Amino acid sequence: MTGWQHIAGPDALNLDLINRAEKLIAPYILQTPVLQSSVLDSIANAQLFFKCENLQRTGAFKFRGAMHALLNLTAEQRKQGVYTVSSGNHGAALAAAGRILGIPVQVAVPNNAPRVKKENIANNGAEIIEIEPGMAAREAFIEEKRTQSQRLFIPPYNHPLIMAGQGTAALELVKAVPDLDALISPLGGGGLLSGTAMVGHSQSIPVFGIEPELANDAWLSLQAGSIQRARPPTSICDGLLTSLGDHTFPVIQTYVKEVLLVSENEVIIAMQQLWQALKVMVEPSSATVFAAVCKYPERFQGKRLGLILSGGNVDVSRLPWPVTLLEKAE
Amino acid sequence: MTGWQHIAGPDALNLDLINRAEKLIAPYILQTPVLQSSVLDSIANAQLFFKCENLQRTGAFKFRGAMHALLNLTAEQRKQGVYTVSSGNHGAALAAAGRILGIPVQVAVPNNAPRVKKENIANNGAEIIEIEPGMAAREAFIEEKRTQSQRLFIPPYNHPLIMAGQGTAALELVKAVPDLDALISPLGGGGLLSGTAMVGHSQSIPVFGIEPELANDAWLSLQAGSIQRARPPTSICDGLLTSLGDHTFPVIQTYVKEVLLVSENEVIIAMQQLWQALKVMVEPSSATVFAAVCKYPERFQGKRLGLILSGGNVDVSRLPWPVTLLEKAE
Repeated sequence: MTGWQHIAGPDALNLDLINRAEKLIAPYILQTPVLQSSVLDSIANAQLFFKCENLQRTGAFKFRGAMHALLNLTAEQRKQGVYTVSSGNHGAALAAAGRILGIPVQVAVPNNAPRVKKENIANNGAEIIEIEPGMAAREAFIEEKRTQSQRLFIPPYNHPLIMAGQGTAALELVKAVPDLDALISPLGGGGLLSGTAMVGHSQSIPVFGIEPELANDAWLSLQAGSIQRARPPTSICDGLLTSLGDHTFPVIQTYVKEVLLVSENEVIIAMQQLWQALKVMVEPSSATVFAAVCKYPERFQGKRLGLILSGGNVDVSRLPWPVTLLEKAE
Repeated sequence: MTGWQHIAGPDALNLDLINRAEKLIAPYILQTPVLQSSVLDSIANAQLFFKCENLQRTGAFKFRGAMHALLNLTAEQRKQGVYTVSSGNHGAALAAAGRILGIPVQVAVPNNAPRVKKENIANNGAEIIEIEPGMAAREAFIEEKRTQSQRLFIPPYNHPLIMAGQGTAALELVKAVPDLDALISPLGGGGLLSGTAMVGHSQSIPVFGIEPELANDAWLSLQAGSIQRARPPTSICDGLLTSLGDHTFPVIQTYVKEVLLVSENEVIIAMQQLWQALKVMVEPSSATVFAAVCKYPERFQGKRLGLILSGGNVDVSRLPWPVTLLEKAE
């Protein structure tokens, strides 16, 4: 059995690891449905298969990686507990996975994080520790924990076991839908995309990563040949604001065919179209993939495409399109 | 093989017919997922299993019954085509089923029906015929077709083959989730509820039907022992405004444990909670079941409950709760 600390280096992620991850996490995850829509097919002029990780436990694919990480811990590591820093989907996912396995979880949250996000983490049973916003406080917290605690840090994406867990979504998709011409995934820190890329590579299916123009650090990193820091967090795609890591970057460099950019407006239009046609809520980050399929017909028109809808954690009382109040009858 | 016209009478619906329906329609329908949410379990203080027919093709369970009806037609009947009167989910479902099977479909739509509903029917390939709103025009249209056309009328709910098709949703649910303490379904014309009741009866699982207070004609019918006409259409639950039929009423009288009522406000609160926690869109009619579980704890608290989410056809730019515009970054 592979242990948490013994996996590292650019060759650590391979199809075997993803296959094993799939078996390990199967009893705990939801095998999410693959949805289709003739309306969306008409808009994109392609045949689209949507892997609905927005319906995954805790509302995002992140539960796969978090569960896979915790299932690889030793009995002693489980007893000590784990921690992470996240105000988003990874925090909630790790909290839920820890609760299921009986592993104590601490999640450090910037004290300016939205209330709903904190509640989501607390509702899933984790201990919340408020820290100052920003990278410096985040790194100071991790350093303090590292030296003063036996707890293991579970990063949001930059570890082969996390990446392998995330790759199981694409693995389920290619098993459910044969003969795909491409796999298309959102691109933030690269955990989901690197796992997806490895699965695509194993089946000779080209893989595309989609990034907002306002958070194009991965696109810049591939141009530069080295990891570029994330830009200030201005994009509505709050799941895609992080930089690549030293584990995810080389996998993406090697196995991703192309990174494509979409605008904020394109994301919002795509998000509304996905809600209306698929009857599922996707968060802005997830809408990037449909936006890209519509924006780049020369790459995608007429093809059979697997799109990963990464998450659905949206506040339904705050939406990026105008909504009229439908009055009730009384 | 059973034919369309040869099935009638209160004993026509039985478990055999539903079992056969399940096999017949399996290649065409989506076996919809069963979702759970610890947040909703906490709110209701029960263990909830949501059968997501809102994710069914055309966004509602109606596709099951429509497909089952068309699969029972003779070759000659298929060639002549079919028609129905519907501005809602049944029209879109019949249109889509007809397109898949190559059967011409006409849908008569009241000329005041919302644009999105007409588009949904037309997008699924049916011919739309506009008629005046109201019961008189509807019945005149059906009478005219009956005498002047070879086309078969496919009613929205009042036929054993339709009811059997709708019952397959509950059949899938009880197979996927053993040991349910109750099945809970919305109640409009009674197609979904009668099929669900027959499945529940076969497994000794009590079945509840939920109706809006503002559309309580079925509740009144059970009190009176005879079918009461639907009230004026004031409820937000636009899928539940129809009267019971002579096929659905006796099945519901015999096999449904209880009909429970919920208010418009309770529906709207439940709808928002379902969207937020499950990450799927449900229409107001579907939210009745969760509203009822919260409203009647003396019946449902601490139980394992199967809830059927009947549909997700909502205009995402018109919602029954206040929504703030989330501004994009640009």
